[in-house]
Amino acid sequence: MSGNTLGTLFCVTSFGESHGPAIGCVVDGCPPGMALAASDIQRDLDRRKPGTSRHVTQRRESDSVEILSGVFEGRTTGTPIALLIRNEDPRSKDYSAIADTFRPGHADYTYWQKYGIRDYRGGGRQSARETAVRVAAGAIARKWLRERYGVTIRGHLTQLGPKLVPFKSWEHIDANPFFVANDTIVPELEAFMDKLRKSGDSCGARVTVIAEGVPVGWGEPVYGKLDADLASAMMGINAVKGVEIGAGFASVAQNGTEHSDEMTPQSSMMNFSMSS
Amino acid sequence: MSGNTLGTLFCVTSFGESHGPAIGCVVDGCPPGMALAASDIQRDLDRRKPGTSRHVTQRRESDSVEILSGVFEGRTTGTPIALLIRNEDPRSKDYSAIADTFRPGHADYTYWQKYGIRDYRGGGRQSARETAVRVAAGAIARKWLRERYGVTIRGHLTQLGPKLVPFKSWEHIDANPFFVANDTIVPELEAFMDKLRKSGDSCGARVTVIAEGVPVGWGEPVYGKLDADLASAMMGINAVKGVEIGAGFASVAQNGTEHSDEMTPQSSMMNFSMSS
Amino acid sequence: MSGNTLGTLFCVTSFGESHGPAIGCVVDGCPPGMALAASDIQRDLDRRKPGTSRHVTQRRESDSVEILSGVFEGRTTGTPIALLIRNEDPRSKDYSAIADTFRPGHADYTYWQKYGIRDYRGGGRQSARETAVRVAAGAIARKWLRERYGVTIRGHLTQLGPKLVPFKSWEHIDANPFFVANDTIVPELEAFMDKLRKSGDSCGARVTVIAEGVPVGWGEPVYGKLDADLASAMMGINAVKGVEIGAGFASVAQNGTEHSDEMTPQSSMMNFSMSS
Amino acid sequence: MSGNTLGTLFCVTSFGESHGPAIGCVVDGCPPGMALAASDIQRDLDRRKPGTSRHVTQRRESDSVEILSGVFEGRTTGTPIALLIRNEDPRSKDYSAIADTFRPGHADYTYWQKYGIRDYRGGGRQSARETAVRVAAGAIARKWLRERYGVTIRGHLTQLGPKLVPFKSWEHIDANPFFVANDTIVPELEAFMDKLRKSGDSCGARVTVIAEGVPVGWGEPVYGKLDADLASAMMGINAVKGVEIGAGFASVAQNGTEHSDEMTPQSSMMNFSMSS
Repeated sequence: MSGNTLGTLFCVTSFGESHGPAIGCVVDGCPPGMALAASDIQRDLDRRKPGTSRHVTQRRESDSVEILSGVFEGRTTGTPIALLIRNEDPRSKDYSAIADTFRPGHADYTYWQKYGIRDYRGGGRQSARETAVRVAAGAIARKWLRERYGVTIRGHLTQLGPKLVPFKSWEHIDANPFFVANDTIVPELEAFMDKLRKSGDSCGARVTVIAEGVPVGWGEPVYGKLDADLASAMMGINAVKGVEIGAGFASVAQNGTEHSDEMTPQSSMMNFSMSS
Repeated sequence: MSGNTLGTLFCVTSFGESHGPAIGCVVDGCPPGMALAASDIQRDLDRRKPGTSRHVTQRRESDSVEILSGVFEGRTTGTPIALLIRNEDPRSKDYSAIADTFRPGHADYTYWQKYGIRDYRGGGRQSARETAVRVAAGAIARKWLRERYGVTIRGHLTQLGPKLVPFKSWEHIDANPFFVANDTIVPELEAFMDKLRKSGDSCGARVTVIAEGVPVGWGEPVYGKLDADLASAMMGINAVKGVEIGAGFASVAQNGTEHSDEMTPQSSMMNFSMSS
Repeated sequence: MSGNTLGTLFCVTSFGESHGPAIGCVVDGCPPGMALAASDIQRDLDRRKPGTSRHVTQRRESDSVEILSGVFEGRTTGTPIALLIRNEDPRSKDYSAIADTFRPGHADYTYWQKYGIRDYRGGGRQSARETAVRVAAGAIARKWLRERYGVTIRGHLTQLGPKLVPFKSWEHIDANPFFVANDTIVPELEAFMDKLRKSGDSCGARVTVIAEGVPVGWGEPVYGKLDADLASAMMGINAVKGVEIGAGFASVAQNGTEHSDEMTPQSSMMNFSMSS
Repeated sequence: MSGNTLGTLFCVTSFGESHGPAIGCVVDGCPPGMALAASDIQRDLDRRKPGTSRHVTQRRESDSVEILSGVFEGRTTGTPIALLIRNEDPRSKDYSAIADTFRPGHADYTYWQKYGIRDYRGGGRQSARETAVRVAAGAIARKWLRERYGVTIRGHLTQLGPKLVPFKSWEHIDANPFFVANDTIVPELEAFMDKLRKSGDSCGARVTVIAEGVPVGWGEPVYGKLDADLASAMMGINAVKGVEIGAGFASVAQNGTEHSDEMTPQSSMMNFSMSS
C-alpha cells in the first residue's frame, strides 16, 4: 500500500535507509525446493556494489547479504526469504552540509512535503542505495526463472551520454567498468568519463535488458501485461526517465507492414531499454 | 490478481469483450459528494468513439454509458460506481475469416496459449475496445482531480508516423480529427493518412499528456512512484511500446548540469509521452 | 481498497444499492473452459430470493441474472465475468419515513459519518441485498470447485432463536422454508416464527456450512489461512456476530487429548458455523 | 500474495521460522512523526515471551527486538519499519525425534503436502513463534491508535478450560501468569493447570479483547468491514477455532428487541472474543 512492496506472485517488500542500520527485504512467494545460498545473491551484489571503479560512487560497502529465513538445509521452503544487508559506511557527517538544502532532481523536497520529516543522511529512503535490495531479490528471481523455465535475462549499457555502444559480445560485459558488451569502446568511454568527472559534471545512460526463452502467456491482461509490470518496475528506479519495449519510440515512424513481426516457432525474446 | 483491476485508492475493475453483450467497469474508491452524471463521462467517450472520421475505425457504436450504482440524487456516495456500455455492433461474422488465423502484433496467439480457448470475435478481451472503459473511468478521476485539487490533465498528438507536430494551442485539439494542438498542420496530416490508408498500411503515433497543478508528494516510494504507476498504466494500453517522462530519452545525452531543474515555487507540471 | 473486492485468485468486485438501478459484480480469475450459463447461477439466486415464504422479506424481485462478459460459446474464457441483476422493486417511498432516523444494528449512522451522505433507500449499499451478489459469484466458484476438485459445499440452518435443529438428511433442506436438514422440526419452527412475527419481533439463527473433499494445503500461511479467509468472508455478511470452525468455542473446555483428531487418509471435511 | 502480509494501510510483512536465524517483519504504512524506540515494542514482547512461568513453554528466548529502519532521530519517518528478533535457543536436536512424525492439530502434514519440503524444527514457519512478530508490529499499531485517536485496546483471559473468569479489574492482568482480570481466581487456575500438566494434558482458553474509543466509520464496506478484518486476523492465529463480536453466538437466542442497542453519544466500545 505504501509502495514498498513489488510483485504479486513473487512479492518483494523492501526496507532501509541509506545511512540507517541496514537495508533488506522479504521475498514472499519464492517457490520451494530451489537450492539457494547467500553466494547466489552475493555475486550480483558484488557487481553492483559501490567503490569498484573510479567511475562510480566511492562509498565503501561490502554489501554482504545474510539470509534470515526461508531456506532450510540449503533449499527454499516456500516460506518468506528475508535478506539483510548491514550498512557499514554511514558517514552521516558528510551530509550535514545539506541538512537544510534541497537537491534538484532528488526527492528531498518531496519527502519533506509528504511526511513532514526529513532524513537528510544521503537521501535516507530515497537513496539509490535501495536498488541493492532490488538486485538481491532479483538474483533469487533470476535463478528461479533460469532453473525452472530456462529464461535468461541479461543487460548491458547501450548509451553513455552521447556515445552509442554497439553490441559485440555478452562476454565483454564483466570485463569493463561500464558493463558494455563491446571491449573496443572502453578506452573512449573511460576518457569521456574522466573528463566529465573532472569538470564536475555527470551524464545520462541507456541500459538494455534482454530476456530470452520467455514462455508465451506470461503477465495478465489487461492492466497487468508483462510490458506494463516491467515498465513500472523500471520507471520506479531512481532517475529513470523513459522505458521502451521492442522497437520502442522508433516504432512511431514505422509503417504497420514494417513493424509487424511474423510469428515464428523460435523461443521468444523480449528487449527493454530504459534511460536515466 | 488476474489483471483486470487498476489502481489502489481509486480502483477500476474492468470487464467485457469486443463483441460480447457489453463492456464496463466498477470504480471503487471515488470519494463521496461529487456531482456526477452520465453526461460527464459521455463527453470523453464521444471524443474516443469509433466512426467519427475516416481516419479511425469505422465500427458503429454510440458508446452510451449508464451509471448503475454509486450515485444518489446526483452525487457520488462513496460506494462503487458501476458503468455499463452495451455493444451495439457486434458483427462477429466479419471475424469468422480469422477464426483460425493469428494476427501478428495482437494477443490472439497469447490468449490461446494462456487460456486454451480463443474468442476470435475482434480479439475479444484483447481488443482495443477495452480502452473505452479506461476513458469512462478516467473521466470520473479527472473530474475529481480538477474539482478537488485543481489538477488539469490534457493530451495531444505530437507525432504521426514521421511527422512531428509542434504545439500551438490547446484550443485546436478538438477542432481536428487527430487531436493535434496545431491547426495549420492538419491538411498535411490528412493527406499523409489518406495516402497511407489507400496503400493498405498504417503507422505509429506519439501522444503527449500534460498534468498541471499536481501537488508535491503524490505517489508512494519506492515501487509506487507516480512515474512508475503512470508508466504501467500507459504501457498497458494496447500497442504502446514506449513511455517517457520529463526529458525522457533525451536526458541520456544531457549533462547533469543541463538536466537539473532548479526548484521554483510555481505549481508543478508533469509531462508524459507514449508511443504506439 | 475500498472494501468491495473479495478474494485473491478468484476475485469478486461487487456493486449496487438496494434501490439503485442494479446490483452485480465482476468475477476476475475464474479459470477458462468451464461450461457456464445464467441458469447455473439463477438456481442459487432463486433459493435466496425474497418473497418465497411468509417467513422472509416480502420484497418482490425476480433477481434475474445476466452474464455480460467472460463466457463465449457457453464456456468461460478466463476473462472477467460480469453479472448484472436489475432491481425491479425499488419502492423507495416506503423508506421516506426513515430518511431522518437511524436504525440500531444497521450501518445508517456509520455511512453517514463516514461519507457525509446518506442513501436512506433501504440502506443503500449497506442493505443485505448485497448478499445476492455473493450468492451469484459463489455459484460460479462452487461449480468450479465441484467440477475441478470434487469439493462439495452445503449449508443448513442448525439453530433458530433458542431452537436447536439436529441434522437428519441433506435431502430435506430444499423442502422447507428454513433450509433445515430435518423435516420433522418444520412445523415447530413455523409456529415459532409465526408467533414471533405477530409480536413484531425477530430472532437470530445459526447456519452451518460443510465442505467435503477439500484438498490438503489450500490457503496460505500465515495470515491467509483458509480459516482466516472464511472467517473474514462470513463475518463480513451483515448481522453475523460469530464464526466457528471445527469444534469452535466448545474446544475451550476440551482437553488436548480429547480435541486432537487422529489423521486418517479419508478426504478432509471442514465445518464452519456462523451466527447472526 | 503468499499470505505473509497483513493489512492494507498499516501493512505487516512477516518472516522467520521457529529455529531459523531470526524472525521479524516489515511494517509499511506507519505514519511519520511518532516517537518510537525498541523499548516501546519490547514491553509487549516481554509480556509474551516464553519461559516466564511454569504454565507456558519453557523455551529460553530474550526476544530482543532491533529496529532496522524507518526511525530517524527517535521518530518514525513514514518509511518501512523493519523489526528483527534473533532466535537464541534453536535446540533443533530436540525435534529430531519428530522429523518423520506428523503431529495432529499442527500444520506439519499440510506444509509437507503443499510445499513438498518439511522444516521439522519446531514447526518451522508454522510455529506459534510467529505470533511474536504480530505482538511486535501490534505494539507499534497500538501506540499510534492511542496517541493519534485515543483508542485503548486491552485483552484478558476470560475462560481457561471449563473455568470462566469474571472480570474484576484491568489492574490485575499483569500481576498473574494467566493475564486474568481477577486476582482471586488465580490460585484456582494455578491448581487446575498444575494438575493438567502433570497428567500430560492441555486445554483451551478464551481471550476477550476490548477496544475503547474507536471512531465511527472505520473499516470498509462491504467485504472489508472492521469485524471481518478482525475475524480474519484472529482466526489466522494458530489454534484459534472461533471468533465472536458483541453478543456473539449468544445473539442467536436473543430476540431482535433484546439484541438491538440504542445508539448513544458515548464513545464506542468493541469487544471481541476468540477461542483456542
